[in-house]
Parts: sequence; C-alpha cells; structure tokens
Amino acid sequence: MRKILVIGSGKSTSYLIKYLLDKSTTENLHVIVGDINIHNAKKLIGKHENAQAIMLDVFDKSSRINAIQNADIVVSMLPARFHIEVAKDCITYNKNMVTASYVSDEMQALDKAVKEKGLVFMNEIGVDPGIDHMSAMKVIDSIRSKGGKMILFESFTGGLVAPESDTNLWNYKFTWNPRNVVVAGQGGAAKFIQEGTYKYIPYHRLFRRTEFLEVEGFGRFEAYANRDSLKYQSVYGLDDVKTLYRGTIRRVGFSRAWNMFVQLGMTDDSYTIDDSENMSYRDFVNSFLPYSHTDSVELKFRYQLKIEQDDIIWDKFLELDIFNSKKMVELKKATPAEILQKILMDSWTLEEDDKDMIVMYHKFGYELNGKMHQIDSTMVTKGEDQTYTAMAKTVGLPVAIATLAILNEKIKTPGVQIPITKEVYDPILKELEDYDIQFTESDVPYLGYNALNV
Amino acid sequence: MRKILVIGSGKSTSYLIKYLLDKSTTENLHVIVGDINIHNAKKLIGKHENAQAIMLDVFDKSSRINAIQNADIVVSMLPARFHIEVAKDCITYNKNMVTASYVSDEMQALDKAVKEKGLVFMNEIGVDPGIDHMSAMKVIDSIRSKGGKMILFESFTGGLVAPESDTNLWNYKFTWNPRNVVVAGQGGAAKFIQEGTYKYIPYHRLFRRTEFLEVEGFGRFEAYANRDSLKYQSVYGLDDVKTLYRGTIRRVGFSRAWNMFVQLGMTDDSYTIDDSENMSYRDFVNSFLPYSHTDSVELKFRYQLKIEQDDIIWDKFLELDIFNSKKMVELKKATPAEILQKILMDSWTLEEDDKDMIVMYHKFGYELNGKMHQIDSTMVTKGEDQTYTAMAKTVGLPVAIATLAILNEKIKTPGVQIPITKEVYDPILKELEDYDIQFTESDVPYLGYNALNV
Repeated sequence: MRKILVIGSGKSTSYLIKYLLDKSTTENLHVIVGDINIHNAKKLIGKHENAQAIMLDVFDKSSRINAIQNADIVVSMLPARFHIEVAKDCITYNKNMVTASYVSDEMQALDKAVKEKGLVFMNEIGVDPGIDHMSAMKVIDSIRSKGGKMILFESFTGGLVAPESDTNLWNYKFTWNPRNVVVAGQGGAAKFIQEGTYKYIPYHRLFRRTEFLEVEGFGRFEAYANRDSLKYQSVYGLDDVKTLYRGTIRRVGFSRAWNMFVQLGMTDDSYTIDDSENMSYRDFVNSFLPYSHTDSVELKFRYQLKIEQDDIIWDKFLELDIFNSKKMVELKKATPAEILQKILMDSWTLEEDDKDMIVMYHKFGYELNGKMHQIDSTMVTKGEDQTYTAMAKTVGLPVAIATLAILNEKIKTPGVQIPITKEVYDPILKELEDYDIQFTESDVPYLGYNALNV
Repeated sequence: MRKILVIGSGKSTSYLIKYLLDKSTTENLHVIVGDINIHNAKKLIGKHENAQAIMLDVFDKSSRINAIQNADIVVSMLPARFHIEVAKDCITYNKNMVTASYVSDEMQALDKAVKEKGLVFMNEIGVDPGIDHMSAMKVIDSIRSKGGKMILFESFTGGLVAPESDTNLWNYKFTWNPRNVVVAGQGGAAKFIQEGTYKYIPYHRLFRRTEFLEVEGFGRFEAYANRDSLKYQSVYGLDDVKTLYRGTIRRVGFSRAWNMFVQLGMTDDSYTIDDSENMSYRDFVNSFLPYSHTDSVELKFRYQLKIEQDDIIWDKFLELDIFNSKKMVELKKATPAEILQKILMDSWTLEEDDKDMIVMYHKFGYELNGKMHQIDSTMVTKGEDQTYTAMAKTVGLPVAIATLAILNEKIKTPGVQIPITKEVYDPILKELEDYDIQFTESDVPYLGYNALNV
C-alpha cells in the first residue's frame, strides 16, 4: 500500500479525504490523517479500512518526523505558516509535498534543495489560489498557441451562499473565515492596471469602485479590487498586458452597504475599544457617531451616512440588529473589527443545511491578426451541506487529484511550484469536470476595461 | 557674563534670539548660537556685541561637549529626536536645559538623574505644546481654586495665514512644515471623550466631523480632532472630565475640500507611485480615478466626489492647477503625500511679505455650587514678516522667557518637566502679554459638547 499522510483535518479536507479513500482500493492507497485534535479526522474517515487517524502535533519534532518518514507523500492542510517545518522534513526524507497555500518566501527558498532531490512541492493548488491559476493558464496558453497576444486579464472569485440558502438582505453568509471578510482590503491601497496605467484605490473607497459581472443562470454579481492585482503578472507572462485586475465577488448591493461600516471605522483592526466588554451593540455603533443631547443613534447613523429613509440599505442594518441596546459585545479589549465580526456572526452564520457556493469569473482580452477578441470564462460550484461545502470541494479536490498524480508520476517536474504548466493543469481540470467543477467559456465583444460599457 | 547656548538657528529661533539679545546688557548675557549651518545664526545675531555664532555639529561629541561645558544654560531648538545627547551632556556638566519639544520617553527617563543633580529640564514650552499648557492650566487652576469641578475641556490651535495675506480660496498657506499638514491625522483613529463616552473617528471621516469656532474680530474657524485628545488628561488632572477634545484650527471650508484629497487617497504616505517622476499633475490625479475611454479627468473627479458644477469647492481644485497635463511631478519614487505636497507648495507657499497667524481657542466647562458654567479663552497672534513669524514668536518667546527665568532662579523646581505649574506659567504668561500674546477670557453659557447648539 502507498501511504499518503494528510496533516490537518479542518474544514477544507472533507472532499480531499473522501476522494483519496474512494480511490484507495483501485489505487492501492493507505490514507493517514494526522491532527492535534483527532476528533474531526476520525469523523471524516469513518470506518474506512484504508484509513487511519493519528494524533499529530507538528510542533513535536520526533512525532512529526516519524509520521513523515512513514509516508510516501505528504499533504499539508495546516494553516500556511506551519508548512515550513513539514517541508524541511520532506526534503530530508525525500518526500513529495502538496499544499493549497500561497508560496511563502521561506518555502520558495527551498526550491534549490527540492530540485536537487528531484522532489515535487506543489503549492497553491486549492481554489483561489489554485483553480484560478489552472483555468486562467489553460485559456492564456490556448490564446498564445493560436498566435494571440494577451492584452487584458481580469479574474474574480467569491465564496458566497447558494441561492437556495440565500435568506438575508445582504445575500451573504460566512462560508469561510469571518475575520478575513471583516478586514478584507485593509493594509494599503489596492493597485491594478487599466489600459496601460496604474490605478490606486484607498481602502475607504474600495467598496465604491465595484464592477458588475453577469453569470448565466445565476444573475448579477459585483466585485471589488484585491489589494495586489499584479501578483501573478510575471508568472502568467502578462508583463505587456494593458489591463490587469483581480477582485472578490459579492452579490450586488453588498459592497454599498458594507462601505457604511468602513466609513464609520467599524472594520478597523488597529486599536482596541475602551471598555468593549460592557458595551451594547448600540453603544458600539454610537462610539463612531457624534454625541447629541437629542438625537437617536439611528438618526445620527442615517444622517452621517446619508441614508434616505426608504433606502433598502437601511433595512440591511436593521436586520443585523446593530441598534440593539440589550445585546452585549462581551469581548474584552476588542478591536472594532472583532466586535463587528461578532455582531455579523449572529446573522451570517450558515445553518446546518445551508449550502455555500463558489463563483469564479475570468476575462481574457487578446489581439489576433490585428483584431481584438475577448473570452469570458465562468465557473459556479455549490456545496452539499456544512461538511461537504463548495469551499472544501474546490480546495480539496485539486489537492487530492494533484497528490495522486504526483504519486503516480504523472506530475514529475521537480521544484517548489504552483499549477501553471500544461503538465499539471490539463489532467487536473479534466478530472475536476467529473465532479461538476467546470468552466463555461464564451467569446464576447472586446470592450477593454470599460466598466460602464460606454 | 552669563552664557546661554542656543543650539539650532532654524525658523522658530528669530524671536528667541532677539529677546535674549535685547535683554543681554541689562541681564548680563552672552548668547552663543550654534548650528551646523552658521549662515542663519549669523543673520539672526547681526553685529550684536553680546552674541556669537559658532559652527556646531551635535553629532561631533567633543565639540558638543565643549560648547555645553562652556555655557550656563542650554536651549535646544534642534528637531526633537536630536535633544537626547544634548540632554545627557547637560546632566554630566550640570547645566539646565530648555526645549520646545514633546517629552520623549528617553527624555522622561532622565528625570531621576536630573532631579538628583537639582537641574531644571523644561520642555514643551513653545506654542503647541507650550502656550496651550500654560493658558489652559491657568484657567483650570483658577476654576479649582474657587471650588469648581472641571467637566469639559476642549482646546484648539491652528497655524494659519493672517487675513491681510489670505489670498487664496483655501484660506490657507503653509506656515510650518508642509509635510505635517499633508499627513495630519493619519496613523489611526482619532479618539476623544464626549459627555462621558469614548468616541472614535477614522482618518477618512476626520475632515467631515469638524466643529465651528468664532473668534471676535477674526470671524469663523473650524477644527478637526487631533489623533489623541487624551494625552494630557491625567497631567492636567482631568480624569473625571466628561468631555475632552483637542483639535486643529482651519478656516471654514478647508476641511471639506481637503477631505476630497483624503477620499481619493492622495494623502497616503504608505506606498510609492510607479513612475512618479514622469507623471504630470493630471496623470497623478487620474491614477486615483477609474479608467474611461470617453470621460475627462475633470468629470471623473467631480462624479467620484459628487461635486456639483457650481460648488465653490471646484474652484479650489482649479486654483491648485491639479488638472494641468504640462506641470510634471518630477519626484522619483514618491508617495501620493509627497506628490500632493509638491503640488500644494506651488500655491500655498508664503510670499516674502506675507504674515502668518496663530489662533488658539480653549473651552472650560465646570460645575460650581450646583450650576454649570463655561469659560472660553482665545488668543490670536500675527507675525510681522517671513523671519519674525507668529510661529517663531509664539514658540520662541516662551522658550526665551523660561530660559532667563531659570537662569535667574525664578523657576527652580528640578526635574524633566512641562509648564503646567503656577510657578512657571504665571510669570511667563504675564510677560507674554507685553509682546501682545494674550488671552481673552469670557463667560459663556455651558452647552456641554454640543456642536450644533441644539
């Protein structure tokens, strides 16, 4: 039996483990799931004969080395900052490795050693990063192979709630780490390229500079810019491109309402609020509004944010119950962002039978024989329940497929890498289609970057 | 002759040196002005018989020690970060010291050694900090001495252009370090107390939450909140106060227009703009606006900021010539803030015969015999020209008066200190009146914190 060590059994591992177990008999696999908390690992493997759950603390060197030595390939589903020690051991004991995380500088620094040993360290092979790389590079490579020259690339991803579980006015629930949603976009101006010039959007304008996206069968979405749209410019070979933009997808109207929190300063994570534990939700909101002898928190909120009384946005805030003077914050020494997160979790937590949904949208503009063309490529995947989520599916399946492909030496180019070569993305995208993760490509008129289609 | 060593001969030293020289014969003083650049020092002392300009590099230990050993008292008018080495030498050689700067942690740490030697290290004795401390503590102490209990303290200062030199639509020119004006308010939410509750304003809302101030004979001003209004809460003995607010004064309308730069991200100092040196002013503005095939930078600017065509604010931007496609930024790897500063310096630099003006406004709310009272205290000082500025006067005269008072042992309580005791502020405020730096106090109805007077 070939042994696959999966370290970590968190939210994004359900489909990963299921895929490997489903193939375990035909592929002769033994799957060992190691976690410091063995409960979830046991739940995910059930009574499967080709699986084993082990207690594994990655900070305990001897047990970590023992587990890695015993495996034929290692999949690290730990939080990104914990990969590096695992990676070093994999070099020492000649094991290939797979992660869904961004390549850290430390990981990149291992490239030479990894190549010398002829090992494959595949990273960024989840959904975003992961499926976005593969689906984009497939189209970019095909445009180039027919002689086209890339002039525009825009790419958008969103983790949302599926339409059948979409039951609130924000058309949003937390399908992943709530904290990342609350602080999204902070830490510097968003930067991208439009028609050959650099553009910058400060955080407090980010949610007012959205772009609309239409996905057939799913209606209209909006996207706000990611902080660094230029991250993969060179990696994708897009140094001469005129427009380069990456963004995050939400349902239309989310950003306009979210912007109100940004405007008041309620998403700030850089300082703590005095006496936060004894504040009501209402007190919290009021701390961002001027004092008044006479006026209600509600009217001050509306006045400061210029919200008209019949604007639907107002109902969104009422739905969150932010003006409640009985609900207490309770968190000690909390930042505004932490308090806001708590308030939102009251309303935006998925119910047990809620389904999530991943939406991806790419635009590829190119020139061929003196003419401008554009291909739009979209993908929507829904989850089944709160264990088998769309997020777990789109993160876990590419990881699982890549792991087996490396084990079977279908992917064998050594080095610390991400899935941007045909050798990698072709078989993986093909197999993902069997699991209903598939892209719809269509030729559309090239409009350049032109949000309003003027 | 008693020797006074003044280190630094920058913008704020003209009145300081003049004061000491004017008193030099009667007080038996010899004034030594040391600077790494001797030019300005020579200009300020002229051919005065009791003065001497020396080349002094504070980083050259032996010449620094030599100068300090040779003096009876040391005045450091260097940038704040350079005081500490001078301070240590003053302890070693038993010299009293005076600065107009905030007490740094390093300076505060010298307190024990300073007291052991019985020395006076007087700091924060310029205008803000300085005159604000003294004028505030005088009123606070008098309220307390008649049995009153402080419930409100608001304090505002602004460095502005005098009405007779006020020739632009912004009613503003740079009278001090332009950089501080461009980045003012950045680095975290402004925090203060209103009617017993903490209030927080994020940077991008700071210039929309202003308060109006009326000064008799000078008309209406506005003020935006300083970042930390609570800095002197304990030092002034205001721990139980219900409202505590410190702010910066501008002419009405400045903040609303300035906010447009903030909104677009043009005051950001945290990243550099690509290819800034080859940008025109127009390119710079456009980098914060969405791309358009068809629309002008002007229209995009107005649309994004919701500026109506007949709004005077529009003329303010035209006056700054920010849409000029011929004027080049020229600065390499510049931040948005650095570029904006350059653009503003084209328009807001004082002419040779322009006069500046310092405005200070305090509000003191207190309870006495069950009744609420309020005292408003205001001060306006104008400069004479570009050497004898209001800034140099209000910074330099308190420093000079304190220096002589320490030399004459009128101020003798030892330690690292700021001017908040009667021993210090009473004689200094009294003497400042001879130079037309005087406060007008008036009893007004107590309204609490109530910006709209509702």
